[in-house]
Amino acid sequence: MRGQSHRCHAPSTDSEAETTESETESMRCISCKAVYGARDAGTCKECYEEASETEEELKREIEDLKAKVAFLRFWSPLDHSHSHNNNRSSSGPCFTDVVLVASQDASPIPVPAHKAVLVSRSPVFKAMLENEMEESRSGTIKIGDVSYDALRAFVNYLYTAEACLDEQMACDLLVVAEKYQVKHLKAYCEKFIVSKLNWDNSVMSYAFAHQHNARHILDAALSLIIDNMDKLTKLEEYMELVEKEPRLVVEIYEAYLSKQVNTAAHKDSSMKP
Amino acid sequence: MRGQSHRCHAPSTDSEAETTESETESMRCISCKAVYGARDAGTCKECYEEASETEEELKREIEDLKAKVAFLRFWSPLDHSHSHNNNRSSSGPCFTDVVLVASQDASPIPVPAHKAVLVSRSPVFKAMLENEMEESRSGTIKIGDVSYDALRAFVNYLYTAEACLDEQMACDLLVVAEKYQVKHLKAYCEKFIVSKLNWDNSVMSYAFAHQHNARHILDAALSLIIDNMDKLTKLEEYMELVEKEPRLVVEIYEAYLSKQVNTAAHKDSSMKP
Repeated sequence: MRGQSHRCHAPSTDSEAETTESETESMRCISCKAVYGARDAGTCKECYEEASETEEELKREIEDLKAKVAFLRFWSPLDHSHSHNNNRSSSGPCFTDVVLVASQDASPIPVPAHKAVLVSRSPVFKAMLENEMEESRSGTIKIGDVSYDALRAFVNYLYTAEACLDEQMACDLLVVAEKYQVKHLKAYCEKFIVSKLNWDNSVMSYAFAHQHNARHILDAALSLIIDNMDKLTKLEEYMELVEKEPRLVVEIYEAYLSKQVNTAAHKDSSMKP
Repeated sequence: MRGQSHRCHAPSTDSEAETTESETESMRCISCKAVYGARDAGTCKECYEEASETEEELKREIEDLKAKVAFLRFWSPLDHSHSHNNNRSSSGPCFTDVVLVASQDASPIPVPAHKAVLVSRSPVFKAMLENEMEESRSGTIKIGDVSYDALRAFVNYLYTAEACLDEQMACDLLVVAEKYQVKHLKAYCEKFIVSKLNWDNSVMSYAFAHQHNARHILDAALSLIIDNMDKLTKLEEYMELVEKEPRLVVEIYEAYLSKQVNTAAHKDSSMKP
Protein backbone atom coordinates (compact mmCIF):
# COMPACT_ATOMS: atom_id res chain seq x y z
CA MET A 1 0.00 0.00 0.00
CA ARG A 2 1.46 3.29 -1.17
CA GLY A 3 3.06 5.44 1.47
CA GLN A 4 2.26 3.23 4.38
CA SER A 5 5.87 2.24 5.04
CA HIS A 6 7.07 5.59 6.32
CA ARG A 7 4.18 6.20 8.69
CA CYS A 8 4.97 6.00 12.34
CA HIS A 9 2.23 5.15 14.74
CA ALA A 10 2.29 6.84 18.15
CA PRO A 11 4.78 4.86 20.20
CA SER A 12 3.17 2.76 22.92
CA THR A 13 4.70 3.95 26.17
CA ASP A 14 2.87 2.79 29.24
CA SER A 15 0.31 0.06 29.61
CA GLU A 16 -1.12 -2.63 27.38
CA ALA A 17 -4.49 -0.90 27.66
CA GLU A 18 -3.21 2.34 26.14
CA THR A 19 -1.77 0.54 23.12
CA THR A 20 -5.14 -0.99 22.39
CA GLU A 21 -6.85 2.40 22.73
CA SER A 22 -4.35 3.96 20.34
CA GLU A 23 -4.92 1.24 17.77
CA THR A 24 -8.65 1.78 17.97
CA GLU A 25 -7.98 5.37 16.98
CA SER A 26 -5.99 4.49 13.87
CA MET A 27 -7.86 5.42 10.72
CA ARG A 28 -8.13 4.31 7.14
CA CYS A 29 -7.42 7.02 4.55
CA ILE A 30 -10.43 7.58 2.30
CA SER A 31 -8.13 8.23 -0.63
CA CYS A 32 -5.27 5.67 -0.54
CA LYS A 33 -7.02 3.22 1.83
CA ALA A 34 -3.89 2.90 4.00
CA VAL A 35 -4.21 2.80 7.79
CA TYR A 36 -2.61 5.74 9.57
CA GLY A 37 -2.32 7.16 13.07
CA ALA A 38 -3.37 10.56 14.38
CA ARG A 39 0.02 12.14 13.76
CA ASP A 40 -0.19 11.28 10.04
CA ALA A 41 -3.68 12.72 9.74
CA GLY A 42 -4.31 15.10 6.87
CA THR A 43 -7.80 16.48 6.47
CA CYS A 44 -11.21 15.89 7.92
CA LYS A 45 -13.83 14.09 5.85
CA GLU A 46 -15.63 17.27 4.86
CA CYS A 47 -12.49 18.87 3.46
CA TYR A 48 -11.67 15.68 1.61
CA GLU A 49 -15.08 15.79 -0.04
CA GLU A 50 -14.74 19.46 -0.87
CA ALA A 51 -11.29 18.87 -2.36
CA SER A 52 -12.67 16.05 -4.50
CA GLU A 53 -15.43 18.32 -5.76
CA THR A 54 -12.92 21.07 -6.52
CA GLU A 55 -10.80 18.60 -8.46
CA GLU A 56 -13.81 17.49 -10.46
CA GLU A 57 -14.71 21.10 -11.21
CA LEU A 58 -11.18 21.92 -12.33
CA LYS A 59 -11.16 18.86 -14.58
CA ARG A 60 -14.47 19.93 -16.13
CA GLU A 61 -13.06 23.41 -16.72
CA ILE A 62 -10.05 21.84 -18.43
CA GLU A 63 -12.34 19.81 -20.68
CA ASP A 64 -14.30 22.93 -21.58
CA LEU A 65 -11.14 24.87 -22.34
CA LYS A 66 -9.74 22.04 -24.44
CA ALA A 67 -12.94 21.99 -26.48
CA LYS A 68 -12.65 25.75 -26.92
CA VAL A 69 -9.04 25.42 -28.09
CA ALA A 70 -10.08 22.72 -30.56
CA PHE A 71 -12.85 24.96 -31.85
CA LEU A 72 -10.67 28.05 -32.17
CA ARG A 73 -7.73 26.21 -33.67
CA PHE A 74 -7.51 27.02 -37.31
CA TRP A 75 -7.01 24.67 -40.18
CA SER A 76 -3.59 25.68 -41.25
CA PRO A 77 -3.25 26.22 -45.00
CA LEU A 78 -0.12 24.08 -44.65
CA ASP A 79 -2.30 21.06 -43.91
CA HIS A 80 -3.85 21.42 -47.33
CA SER A 81 -0.90 22.21 -49.52
CA HIS A 82 2.24 20.13 -49.56
CA SER A 83 5.64 21.63 -49.96
CA HIS A 84 5.78 20.37 -53.53
CA ASN A 85 2.83 22.21 -54.91
CA ASN A 86 2.27 25.23 -52.74
CA ASN A 87 3.47 27.63 -55.37
CA ARG A 88 -0.18 28.04 -56.24
CA SER A 89 -0.60 29.43 -52.77
CA SER A 90 -2.71 32.50 -53.20
CA SER A 91 -5.53 30.70 -54.98
CA GLY A 92 -7.00 27.30 -54.16
CA PRO A 93 -9.59 26.29 -51.62
CA CYS A 94 -7.89 27.85 -48.57
CA PHE A 95 -8.59 31.45 -49.56
CA THR A 96 -5.06 32.46 -48.63
CA ASP A 97 -4.19 36.03 -49.65
CA VAL A 98 -0.51 36.33 -48.81
CA VAL A 99 2.68 34.26 -48.87
CA LEU A 100 5.68 34.30 -46.59
CA VAL A 101 9.14 33.43 -47.85
CA ALA A 102 12.38 32.71 -46.07
CA SER A 103 14.48 35.40 -47.75
CA GLN A 104 17.76 33.64 -46.95
CA ASP A 105 16.88 30.84 -49.41
CA ALA A 106 18.13 31.29 -52.96
CA SER A 107 14.90 29.95 -54.47
CA PRO A 108 12.49 30.18 -51.57
CA ILE A 109 9.31 28.10 -51.39
CA PRO A 110 6.42 30.37 -50.47
CA VAL A 111 4.38 29.53 -47.38
CA PRO A 112 0.74 30.51 -47.93
CA ALA A 113 -1.26 32.28 -45.22
CA HIS A 114 -4.19 34.58 -44.54
CA LYS A 115 -3.55 38.25 -43.85
CA ALA A 116 -6.37 38.11 -41.31
CA VAL A 117 -4.58 35.41 -39.30
CA LEU A 118 -1.20 37.14 -39.40
CA VAL A 119 -2.76 40.44 -38.35
CA SER A 120 -4.64 38.76 -35.55
CA ARG A 121 -1.56 37.08 -34.07
CA SER A 122 1.22 39.64 -34.49
CA PRO A 123 1.21 43.42 -33.99
CA VAL A 124 4.14 43.63 -36.41
CA PHE A 125 2.20 41.92 -39.21
CA LYS A 126 -0.76 44.08 -38.26
CA ALA A 127 1.18 47.30 -38.76
CA MET A 128 2.78 45.94 -41.92
CA LEU A 129 -0.42 44.73 -43.58
CA GLU A 130 -2.93 47.29 -42.43
CA ASN A 131 -0.78 50.22 -43.44
CA GLU A 132 -0.56 49.22 -47.07
CA MET A 133 3.17 48.78 -46.99
CA GLU A 134 5.15 47.02 -49.70
CA GLU A 135 4.29 43.59 -48.25
CA SER A 136 0.58 44.25 -48.37
CA ARG A 137 0.65 45.42 -51.97
CA SER A 138 2.86 42.62 -53.25
CA GLY A 139 1.22 39.90 -51.17
CA THR A 140 4.66 38.57 -50.25
CA ILE A 141 6.29 38.93 -46.85
CA LYS A 142 10.01 38.24 -46.70
CA ILE A 143 11.22 36.81 -43.41
CA GLY A 144 14.95 37.09 -42.81
CA ASP A 145 17.24 34.83 -40.79
CA VAL A 146 14.95 31.84 -40.83
CA SER A 147 14.98 28.46 -42.56
CA TYR A 148 12.06 27.21 -44.62
CA ASP A 149 11.28 24.59 -41.95
CA ALA A 150 11.25 27.15 -39.16
CA LEU A 151 9.08 29.48 -41.24
CA ARG A 152 6.59 26.67 -41.87
CA ALA A 153 6.55 25.84 -38.16
CA PHE A 154 6.08 29.52 -37.34
CA VAL A 155 3.10 29.94 -39.67
CA ASN A 156 1.64 26.67 -38.45
CA TYR A 157 1.85 27.90 -34.86
CA LEU A 158 -0.06 31.05 -35.76
CA TYR A 159 -2.95 28.83 -36.88
CA THR A 160 -2.84 26.06 -34.32
CA ALA A 161 -0.87 27.23 -31.23
CA GLU A 162 1.14 24.03 -31.60
CA ALA A 163 4.69 23.26 -32.62
CA CYS A 164 6.89 20.22 -32.56
CA LEU A 165 10.06 21.46 -30.88
CA ASP A 166 13.61 20.31 -30.54
CA GLU A 167 16.30 22.59 -29.14
CA GLN A 168 17.27 24.07 -32.51
CA MET A 169 13.67 24.65 -33.58
CA ALA A 170 12.83 26.24 -30.21
CA CYS A 171 15.68 28.74 -30.67
CA ASP A 172 14.75 29.44 -34.29
CA LEU A 173 11.10 29.99 -33.44
CA LEU A 174 11.93 32.15 -30.45
CA VAL A 175 13.91 34.46 -32.72
CA VAL A 176 11.01 34.86 -35.17
CA ALA A 177 8.48 35.13 -32.34
CA GLU A 178 10.53 37.91 -30.77
CA LYS A 179 10.86 39.73 -34.08
CA TYR A 180 7.14 39.56 -34.89
CA GLN A 181 6.05 39.95 -31.27
CA VAL A 182 4.14 36.70 -31.03
CA LYS A 183 4.31 36.54 -27.23
CA HIS A 184 2.52 33.24 -26.84
CA LEU A 185 4.99 31.44 -29.10
CA LYS A 186 7.95 33.13 -27.43
CA ALA A 187 6.78 31.99 -24.00
CA TYR A 188 6.24 28.48 -25.38
CA CYS A 189 9.81 28.33 -26.72
CA GLU A 190 11.28 29.82 -23.54
CA LYS A 191 9.55 27.17 -21.45
CA PHE A 192 10.95 24.44 -23.67
CA ILE A 193 14.49 25.83 -23.63
CA VAL A 194 14.43 26.27 -19.84
CA SER A 195 13.35 22.63 -19.52
CA LYS A 196 16.44 21.60 -21.52
CA LEU A 197 18.93 23.79 -19.60
CA ASN A 198 22.04 22.06 -18.28
CA TRP A 199 25.58 22.98 -17.40
CA ASP A 200 26.87 22.31 -20.90
CA ASN A 201 24.46 24.65 -22.65
CA SER A 202 24.11 27.20 -19.83
CA VAL A 203 26.55 29.85 -21.12
CA MET A 204 25.29 29.61 -24.70
CA SER A 205 21.70 29.81 -23.50
CA TYR A 206 22.60 32.78 -21.33
CA ALA A 207 24.08 34.65 -24.30
CA PHE A 208 21.18 33.66 -26.52
CA ALA A 209 18.65 34.83 -23.95
CA HIS A 210 20.45 38.16 -23.68
CA GLN A 211 20.42 38.65 -27.40
CA HIS A 212 16.73 37.90 -27.76
CA ASN A 213 15.43 39.42 -24.59
CA ALA A 214 14.22 36.11 -23.15
CA ARG A 215 13.85 36.84 -19.45
CA HIS A 216 12.91 33.34 -18.27
CA ILE A 217 15.85 31.66 -19.97
CA LEU A 218 18.17 34.42 -18.78
CA ASP A 219 17.20 34.01 -15.13
CA ALA A 220 17.36 30.23 -15.22
CA ALA A 221 20.72 30.12 -17.02
CA LEU A 222 22.26 32.78 -14.81
CA SER A 223 21.20 30.99 -11.67
CA LEU A 224 22.66 27.72 -13.00
CA ILE A 225 25.95 29.45 -13.85
CA ILE A 226 26.25 31.18 -10.48
CA ASP A 227 25.74 27.87 -8.70
CA ASN A 228 28.78 26.46 -10.54
CA MET A 229 31.16 29.40 -10.61
CA ASP A 230 34.16 27.22 -9.76
CA LYS A 231 33.77 25.43 -13.10
CA LEU A 232 32.91 28.48 -15.18
CA THR A 233 36.31 29.75 -16.30
CA LYS A 234 37.25 26.32 -17.65
CA LEU A 235 34.41 26.35 -20.15
CA GLU A 236 35.23 26.94 -23.80
CA GLU A 237 32.02 28.95 -24.18
CA TYR A 238 33.18 31.19 -21.36
CA MET A 239 36.38 32.10 -23.24
CA GLU A 240 34.35 32.87 -26.32
CA LEU A 241 31.94 35.04 -24.38
CA VAL A 242 34.82 37.01 -22.80
CA GLU A 243 36.12 37.58 -26.31
CA LYS A 244 32.85 38.53 -27.98
CA GLU A 245 30.55 39.88 -25.27
CA PRO A 246 32.61 40.87 -22.23
CA ARG A 247 29.72 42.91 -20.83
CA LEU A 248 27.66 39.75 -20.44
CA VAL A 249 30.51 38.18 -18.50
CA VAL A 250 30.61 41.22 -16.25
CA GLU A 251 26.91 40.73 -15.56
CA ILE A 252 27.57 37.14 -14.49
CA TYR A 253 30.20 38.30 -11.99
CA GLU A 254 27.95 41.08 -10.74
CA ALA A 255 25.13 38.62 -10.15
CA TYR A 256 27.53 36.25 -8.39
CA LEU A 257 28.83 39.01 -6.14
CA SER A 258 25.34 40.20 -5.32
CA LYS A 259 24.34 36.66 -4.35
CA GLN A 260 27.40 36.32 -2.11
CA VAL A 261 26.64 39.60 -0.37
CA ASN A 262 23.03 38.54 0.18
CA THR A 263 24.02 35.15 1.54
CA ALA A 264 26.52 36.76 3.91
CA ALA A 265 23.94 39.28 5.12
CA HIS A 266 21.48 36.44 5.68
CA LYS A 267 24.03 34.43 7.69
CA ASP A 268 24.91 37.51 9.76
CA SER A 269 21.31 38.23 10.66
CA SER A 270 20.56 34.60 11.50
CA MET A 271 23.66 34.35 13.73
CA LYS A 272 22.72 37.40 15.80
CA PRO A 273 21.20 36.49 19.17
CA MET B 1 -15.08 27.39 11.99
CA ARG B 2 -16.67 25.93 8.89
CA GLY B 3 -18.27 22.55 9.22
CA GLN B 4 -17.36 21.96 12.82
CA SER B 5 -20.92 22.10 14.10
CA HIS B 6 -22.15 18.86 12.54
CA ARG B 7 -19.23 16.73 13.63
CA CYS B 8 -19.97 14.16 16.27
CA HIS B 9 -17.14 13.06 18.49
CA ALA B 10 -17.09 9.46 19.59
CA PRO B 11 -19.54 9.25 22.49
CA SER B 12 -17.83 8.75 25.82
CA THR B 13 -19.29 5.57 27.21
CA ASP B 14 -17.40 4.10 30.10
CA SER B 15 -14.80 5.76 32.26
CA GLU B 16 -13.38 9.26 32.64
CA ALA B 17 -10.03 7.86 31.49
CA GLU B 18 -11.37 6.77 28.12
CA THR B 19 -12.86 10.17 27.42
CA THR B 20 -9.49 11.79 27.99
CA GLU B 21 -7.80 9.28 25.71
CA SER B 22 -10.35 9.93 22.98
CA GLU B 23 -9.79 13.68 23.24
CA THR B 24 -6.05 13.20 22.91
CA GLU B 25 -6.72 11.49 19.61
CA SER B 26 -8.73 14.35 18.16
CA MET B 27 -6.92 16.01 15.28
CA ARG B 28 -6.77 19.37 13.59
CA CYS B 29 -7.62 19.37 9.88
CA ILE B 30 -4.68 20.67 7.82
CA SER B 31 -7.09 22.31 5.42
CA CYS B 32 -9.91 23.95 7.44
CA LYS B 33 -8.06 23.94 10.80
CA ALA B 34 -11.10 22.54 12.60
CA VAL B 35 -10.65 19.88 15.28
CA TYR B 36 -12.21 16.52 14.43
CA GLY B 37 -12.39 13.02 15.80
CA ALA B 38 -11.37 9.75 14.19
CA ARG B 39 -14.80 9.06 12.73
CA ASP B 40 -14.71 12.35 10.80
CA ALA B 41 -11.26 11.63 9.43
CA GLY B 42 -10.73 12.08 5.71
CA THR B 43 -7.28 11.48 4.29
CA CYS B 44 -3.81 10.88 5.60
CA LYS B 45 -1.25 13.66 5.38
CA GLU B 46 0.46 12.23 2.34
CA CYS B 47 -2.74 12.10 0.33
CA TYR B 48 -3.57 15.62 1.41
CA GLU B 49 -0.23 16.81 0.08
CA GLU B 50 -0.66 14.89 -3.16
CA ALA B 51 -4.13 16.32 -3.63
CA SER B 52 -2.79 19.84 -3.10
CA GLU B 53 -0.12 19.26 -5.72
CA THR B 54 -2.68 17.88 -8.15
CA GLU B 55 -4.84 20.94 -7.60
CA GLU B 56 -1.90 23.23 -8.30
CA GLU B 57 -1.09 21.30 -11.48
CA LEU B 58 -4.67 21.48 -12.69
CA LYS B 59 -4.73 25.22 -12.03
CA ARG B 60 -1.53 25.67 -14.01
CA GLU B 61 -3.01 23.67 -16.87
CA ILE B 62 -6.07 25.93 -16.78
CA GLU B 63 -3.87 29.02 -16.97
CA ASP B 64 -1.99 27.56 -19.95
CA LEU B 65 -5.23 26.69 -21.73
CA LYS B 66 -6.68 30.13 -21.07
CA ALA B 67 -3.58 31.72 -22.59
CA LYS B 68 -3.96 29.43 -25.60
CA VAL B 69 -7.61 30.41 -26.00
CA ALA B 70 -6.64 34.08 -25.80
CA PHE B 71 -3.99 33.54 -28.47
CA LEU B 72 -6.24 31.57 -30.80
CA ARG B 73 -9.21 33.86 -30.37
CA PHE B 74 -9.62 35.91 -33.48
CA TRP B 75 -10.22 39.59 -33.73
CA SER B 76 -13.72 39.61 -35.04
CA PRO B 77 -14.22 41.92 -37.99
CA LEU B 78 -17.27 43.11 -36.06
CA ASP B 79 -14.99 44.73 -33.50
CA HIS B 80 -13.58 46.93 -36.24
CA SER B 81 -16.62 47.87 -38.25
CA HIS B 82 -19.74 49.31 -36.70
CA SER B 83 -23.15 48.43 -37.96
CA HIS B 84 -23.42 51.85 -39.57
CA ASN B 85 -20.51 51.60 -41.95
CA ASN B 86 -19.87 47.95 -42.59
CA ASN B 87 -21.25 48.10 -46.09
CA ARG B 88 -17.63 48.49 -47.14
CA SER B 89 -17.12 45.01 -45.82
CA SER B 90 -15.08 43.25 -48.41
CA SER B 91 -12.31 45.82 -48.41
CA GLY B 92 -10.84 47.71 -45.47
CA PRO B 93 -8.21 46.71 -42.98
CA CYS B 94 -9.82 43.43 -41.92
CA PHE B 95 -9.25 41.65 -45.22
CA THR B 96 -12.75 40.20 -45.12
CA ASP B 97 -13.76 38.46 -48.33
CA VAL B 98 -17.40 37.57 -47.79
CA VAL B 99 -20.52 39.01 -46.19
CA LEU B 100 -23.42 37.29 -44.46
CA VAL B 101 -26.90 38.75 -44.55
CA ALA B 102 -30.03 37.92 -42.61
CA SER B 103 -32.28 37.22 -45.57
CA GLN B 104 -35.46 37.83 -43.59
CA ASP B 105 -34.67 41.56 -43.34
CA ALA B 106 -36.10 43.77 -46.06
CA SER B 107 -32.90 45.82 -46.32
CA PRO B 108 -30.37 43.62 -44.61
CA ILE B 109 -27.13 44.99 -43.15
CA PRO B 110 -24.25 42.79 -44.29
CA VAL B 111 -22.05 41.19 -41.66
CA PRO B 112 -18.45 40.96 -42.93
CA ALA B 113 -16.37 37.83 -42.43
CA HIS B 114 -13.48 35.79 -43.76
CA LYS B 115 -14.15 32.73 -45.88
CA ALA B 116 -11.21 31.04 -44.17
CA VAL B 117 -12.84 31.45 -40.75
CA LEU B 118 -16.27 30.27 -41.89
CA VAL B 119 -14.74 27.24 -43.60
CA SER B 120 -12.67 26.43 -40.54
CA ARG B 121 -15.66 26.49 -38.17
CA SER B 122 -18.52 24.96 -40.14
CA PRO B 123 -18.59 21.99 -42.51
CA VAL B 124 -21.64 23.53 -44.18
CA PHE B 125 -19.79 26.75 -44.99
CA LYS B 126 -16.84 24.62 -46.04
CA ALA B 127 -18.88 22.72 -48.61
CA MET B 128 -20.59 25.90 -49.73
CA LEU B 129 -17.44 28.00 -50.20
CA GLU B 130 -14.94 25.43 -51.37
CA ASN B 131 -17.21 24.07 -54.06
CA GLU B 132 -17.57 27.39 -55.83
CA MET B 133 -21.29 27.57 -55.26
CA GLU B 134 -23.35 30.69 -55.79
CA GLU B 135 -22.33 32.07 -52.35
CA SER B 136 -18.65 31.74 -53.13
CA ARG B 137 -18.93 33.53 -56.44
CA SER B 138 -21.13 36.36 -55.20
CA GLY B 139 -19.32 36.78 -51.89
CA THR B 140 -22.68 36.98 -50.13
CA ILE B 141 -24.16 34.26 -47.94
CA LYS B 142 -27.85 34.57 -47.15
CA ILE B 143 -28.85 33.18 -43.78
CA GLY B 144 -32.57 32.49 -43.36
CA ASP B 145 -34.71 32.59 -40.21
CA VAL B 146 -32.34 34.73 -38.21
CA SER B 147 -32.36 38.32 -36.98
CA TYR B 148 -29.51 40.71 -37.66
CA ASP B 149 -28.52 40.62 -33.98
CA ALA B 150 -28.43 36.83 -33.87
CA LEU B 151 -26.43 36.74 -37.11
CA ARG B 152 -23.90 39.17 -35.67
CA ALA B 153 -23.65 37.10 -32.49
CA PHE B 154 -23.25 33.96 -34.60
CA VAL B 155 -20.40 35.38 -36.66
CA ASN B 156 -18.79 36.82 -33.55
CA TYR B 157 -18.86 33.37 -31.93
CA LEU B 158 -17.08 31.86 -34.92
CA TYR B 159 -14.21 34.25 -34.25
CA THR B 160 -14.11 34.33 -30.47
CA ALA B 161 -15.96 31.28 -29.06
CA GLU B 162 -17.90 33.73 -26.93
CA ALA B 163 -21.47 34.93 -26.90
CA CYS B 164 -23.55 36.98 -24.54
CA LEU B 165 -26.68 34.87 -24.11
CA ASP B 166 -30.17 35.36 -22.86
CA GLU B 167 -32.86 32.74 -23.37
CA GLN B 168 -34.04 34.12 -26.71
CA MET B 169 -30.51 34.52 -28.07
CA ALA B 170 -29.55 31.02 -26.92
CA CYS B 171 -32.51 29.58 -28.88
CA ASP B 172 -31.75 31.70 -31.94
CA LEU B 173 -28.07 30.77 -31.95
CA LEU B 174 -28.84 27.09 -31.37
CA VAL B 175 -30.98 27.09 -34.51
CA VAL B 176 -28.23 28.62 -36.66
CA ALA B 177 -25.55 26.44 -35.02
CA GLU B 178 -27.62 23.34 -35.82
CA LYS B 179 -28.15 24.47 -39.40
CA TYR B 180 -24.46 25.20 -40.05
CA GLN B 181 -23.20 22.35 -37.88
CA VAL B 182 -21.20 24.48 -35.48
CA LYS B 183 -21.21 21.85 -32.72
CA HIS B 184 -19.30 23.89 -30.17
CA LEU B 185 -21.82 26.72 -30.31
CA LYS B 186 -24.75 24.31 -30.22
CA ALA B 187 -23.38 22.64 -27.07
CA TYR B 188 -22.81 26.08 -25.53
CA CYS B 189 -26.43 27.10 -26.17
CA GLU B 190 -27.79 23.76 -24.96
CA LYS B 191 -25.89 24.12 -21.69
CA PHE B 192 -27.31 27.60 -21.19
CA ILE B 193 -30.88 26.56 -21.97
CA VAL B 194 -30.66 23.52 -19.66
CA SER B 195 -29.44 25.82 -16.88
CA LYS B 196 -32.58 27.95 -17.35
CA LEU B 197 -35.05 25.04 -17.47
CA ASN B 198 -38.03 25.24 -15.14
CA TRP B 199 -41.56 23.93 -15.00
CA ASP B 200 -42.99 26.91 -16.86
CA ASN B 201 -40.75 26.57 -19.89
CA SER B 202 -40.34 22.78 -19.80
CA VAL B 203 -42.92 21.84 -22.43
CA MET B 204 -41.83 24.59 -24.82
CA SER B 205 -38.20 23.62 -24.33
CA TYR B 206 -39.09 19.99 -24.91
CA ALA B 207 -40.77 20.81 -28.23
CA PHE B 208 -37.94 23.14 -29.22
CA ALA B 209 -35.32 20.50 -28.43
CA HIS B 210 -37.23 17.97 -30.52
CA GLN B 211 -37.37 20.29 -33.47
CA HIS B 212 -33.66 21.11 -33.40
CA ASN B 213 -32.26 17.79 -32.35
CA ALA B 214 -30.92 19.08 -29.04
CA ARG B 215 -30.43 15.92 -27.01
CA HIS B 216 -29.30 17.51 -23.73
CA ILE B 217 -32.26 19.86 -23.56
CA LEU B 218 -34.60 17.07 -24.59
CA ASP B 219 -33.46 14.73 -21.82
CA ALA B 220 -33.49 17.43 -19.15
CA ALA B 221 -36.93 18.77 -20.14
CA LEU B 222 -38.47 15.30 -20.44
CA SER B 223 -37.20 14.30 -17.02
CA LEU B 224 -38.61 17.51 -15.52
CA ILE B 225 -41.99 16.91 -17.17
CA ILE B 226 -42.20 13.28 -16.07
CA ASP B 227 -41.50 14.27 -12.49
CA ASN B 228 -44.54 16.57 -12.59
CA MET B 229 -47.04 14.54 -14.62
CA ASP B 230 -49.93 15.45 -12.28
CA LYS B 231 -49.63 19.10 -13.31
CA LEU B 232 -48.95 18.48 -17.00
CA THR B 233 -52.45 18.39 -18.49
CA LYS B 234 -53.32 21.73 -16.89
CA LEU B 235 -50.59 23.55 -18.81
CA GLU B 236 -51.60 25.75 -21.71
CA GLU B 237 -48.47 24.65 -23.60
CA TYR B 238 -49.60 21.05 -23.20
CA MET B 239 -52.93 21.75 -24.96
CA GLU B 240 -51.04 23.46 -27.77
CA LEU B 241 -48.64 20.55 -28.13
CA VAL B 242 -51.52 18.03 -28.28
CA GLU B 243 -52.98 20.16 -31.04
CA LYS B 244 -49.81 20.72 -33.08
CA GLU B 245 -47.46 17.87 -32.31
CA PRO B 246 -49.41 14.97 -30.80
CA ARG B 247 -46.54 12.58 -31.46
CA LEU B 248 -44.35 14.50 -29.04
CA VAL B 249 -47.05 14.17 -26.40
CA VAL B 250 -47.15 10.43 -27.02
CA GLU B 251 -43.41 10.31 -26.40
CA ILE B 252 -43.90 12.02 -23.04
CA TYR B 253 -46.48 9.39 -22.01
CA GLU B 254 -44.27 6.58 -23.25
CA ALA B 255 -41.33 7.89 -21.24
CA TYR B 256 -43.57 8.24 -18.18
CA LEU B 257 -44.88 4.70 -18.55
CA SER B 258 -41.40 3.30 -19.03
CA LYS B 259 -40.23 5.06 -15.86
CA GLN B 260 -43.21 3.67 -13.90
CA VAL B 261 -42.49 0.14 -15.09
CA ASN B 262 -38.83 0.50 -14.15
CA THR B 263 -39.66 1.87 -10.71
CA ALA B 264 -42.11 -0.98 -10.10
CA ALA B 265 -39.58 -3.58 -11.21
CA HIS B 266 -37.00 -2.01 -8.92
CA LYS B 267 -39.40 -2.05 -5.95
CA ASP B 268 -40.33 -5.67 -6.67
CA SER B 269 -36.74 -6.82 -6.75
CA SER B 270 -35.82 -4.93 -3.58
CA MET B 271 -38.86 -6.33 -1.72
CA LYS B 272 -37.98 -9.96 -2.54
CA PRO B 273 -36.34 -11.81 0.33
